[in-house]
Amino acid sequence: MKGIRQLAEHLEISIGTVSRALNGKPDVNEETRRRVLEAAESLGYVANQSGRALRKGSTGVIGFMMQTGREITGQGDTFFMSVFDGVQTVLARHKLDLVALLCSSEENPDDYLKRIVARGFADGLILSATRRHDSRFELLARRKIPFITLGRSLSDVGQPWIDLDFEGMAETSVERLVARGHRRIAITRPHDDMNLGYVFVDRCRAVLARHGLELADEHIFRSTPNETGGYQIARDLIACHERPTAILLVNEAIATGLYRGLNDAGLIPGRDIAVIGRQSPHSHFLSPRLTSYSLSLRDLGIALAETLLGTMPTYAEIYAGHPDRLLWPMTLLDGESDGEAPAG
Amino acid sequence: MKGIRQLAEHLEISIGTVSRALNGKPDVNEETRRRVLEAAESLGYVANQSGRALRKGSTGVIGFMMQTGREITGQGDTFFMSVFDGVQTVLARHKLDLVALLCSSEENPDDYLKRIVARGFADGLILSATRRHDSRFELLARRKIPFITLGRSLSDVGQPWIDLDFEGMAETSVERLVARGHRRIAITRPHDDMNLGYVFVDRCRAVLARHGLELADEHIFRSTPNETGGYQIARDLIACHERPTAILLVNEAIATGLYRGLNDAGLIPGRDIAVIGRQSPHSHFLSPRLTSYSLSLRDLGIALAETLLGTMPTYAEIYAGHPDRLLWPMTLLDGESDGEAPAG
Repeated sequence: MKGIRQLAEHLEISIGTVSRALNGKPDVNEETRRRVLEAAESLGYVANQSGRALRKGSTGVIGFMMQTGREITGQGDTFFMSVFDGVQTVLARHKLDLVALLCSSEENPDDYLKRIVARGFADGLILSATRRHDSRFELLARRKIPFITLGRSLSDVGQPWIDLDFEGMAETSVERLVARGHRRIAITRPHDDMNLGYVFVDRCRAVLARHGLELADEHIFRSTPNETGGYQIARDLIACHERPTAILLVNEAIATGLYRGLNDAGLIPGRDIAVIGRQSPHSHFLSPRLTSYSLSLRDLGIALAETLLGTMPTYAEIYAGHPDRLLWPMTLLDGESDGEAPAG
Repeated sequence: MKGIRQLAEHLEISIGTVSRALNGKPDVNEETRRRVLEAAESLGYVANQSGRALRKGSTGVIGFMMQTGREITGQGDTFFMSVFDGVQTVLARHKLDLVALLCSSEENPDDYLKRIVARGFADGLILSATRRHDSRFELLARRKIPFITLGRSLSDVGQPWIDLDFEGMAETSVERLVARGHRRIAITRPHDDMNLGYVFVDRCRAVLARHGLELADEHIFRSTPNETGGYQIARDLIACHERPTAILLVNEAIATGLYRGLNDAGLIPGRDIAVIGRQSPHSHFLSPRLTSYSLSLRDLGIALAETLLGTMPTYAEIYAGHPDRLLWPMTLLDGESDGEAPAG
């Protein structure tokens, strides 16, 4: 087992250069970096990870905390992998590595994060799945760990965030449905305490109220973010006392299941019930074509990474001027699934 | 910033107990563990990560290395997230955390792994996306880092592996198609150097040869593992000089795109061309129903984690007796997509 001094002597390079190469600093040329990594490997060098972190606040790793579990990732959530792609594009410029910190849905996210922080292996963090009240923010702020949140919360420690513009989605889609004659409009929200559910319900209710319409409690469907959840919503919707003529899907992974559930009951989206949802790699293949909100998940990942780096001293200058709080717009794509309300 | 001694004094618990709690050892009760983590957080304790790793080989983290990128995860790969779910089920028993080590498809996986090893933050590794020749195995063996591979390779350092039974899939599906009168059978393989492509092509060719049939080069379609890849295959297949009457899909993410491409050309799976594929969260919603191979990704994750832990001294006793090399069976589910070959 060798230390950095032996490594430098072996390579006849200064300790400073070896250190910068091992830490992925951009001012080391590619050839030197490769030589150092090869030698580190063949000589059996092991970094003093935490010593390094304590001295320089640099582990070379950015962590992306996300929830996993049977009901979420176990059934085909494709959102995060696409966002990672964008995050990595930015991190690669600085030889930073991305690791996904996978918090099981069976574990308390606060406990999980405390353990991650105690292990101390990331220079900065991206948090997703923000809850209505989210004590993770306060924990990271106290420890002065740079972080950004994908999503908002009533908890606020002044950290940067980017959130999808669910208010904008509520505005344009409710207006569109009302203009097409719909009066009984249903919506979906997450099954759990995600902040986005509150934001979406509140704005939908407000827009409906402008038109003298109410959002009935039985027309707010909670669902797990997967196809099974979508299928269940179709069944519940069909069983409604007063069946809605339209439904807005706040999650992108439920449309295929909803379509299947409607079809099984002989209902066709766009003809028998209006459906507006969000685009996913799979919604492209639905028939009739889903009217849906789209966004570039890759660009979202790029923005998350650049904004986070902008808060870290080493990179602040490069990424100065990024807005640190941003509602990420979504674009409505016309489909065939949101026709006129039936007469009467 | 406090060390473990101050933490132990503050809590009036022995250093050994604090250490075991911080390291997630199973012999610390839940209440003590929580008190230690709370105190570690509020007092600003930072673990000497690498010092700990050097002394005890224990970081409490298992890494799962996977490829990411626009062509893979950027378009809806759902495989790994489901496997993670099973891996976490096992790791949770031992308070171990799973991190996904995301290697961009634009980077050399060997270079990436060298950096990860130099950073030294995992006790054990699961490698996926095994190539025909894969020098990562040798690297980890030299460093004596416990690992298991999801997939085989011509490279072999005696490590444990689990691979999907692509040979079995080739056997049963080619036999089935031949029995239904098909003589021109096409297959897909990955666009890159993944080992599974070689295994699958070789076995399909061997089974066809038993029936005096050949696998024409123009009937082997390379594709990226996503819907776009599937759509392109449909187009290429339709343009074939001698159009195949059946196609076997080795990847699970391409079926929806293939169906769409066939439909756009007026071809119906099961009537105009036989299709056999693999199940995914989205293939359930295809019509006509896809004849497909299914497996429990969660159980696969459980087996990967248990087999890996069985090679690590701390856990070897608990997981003794696991076979360390295993072809993971897949079950064929009847659908409507693989009808008889057209007469003549």
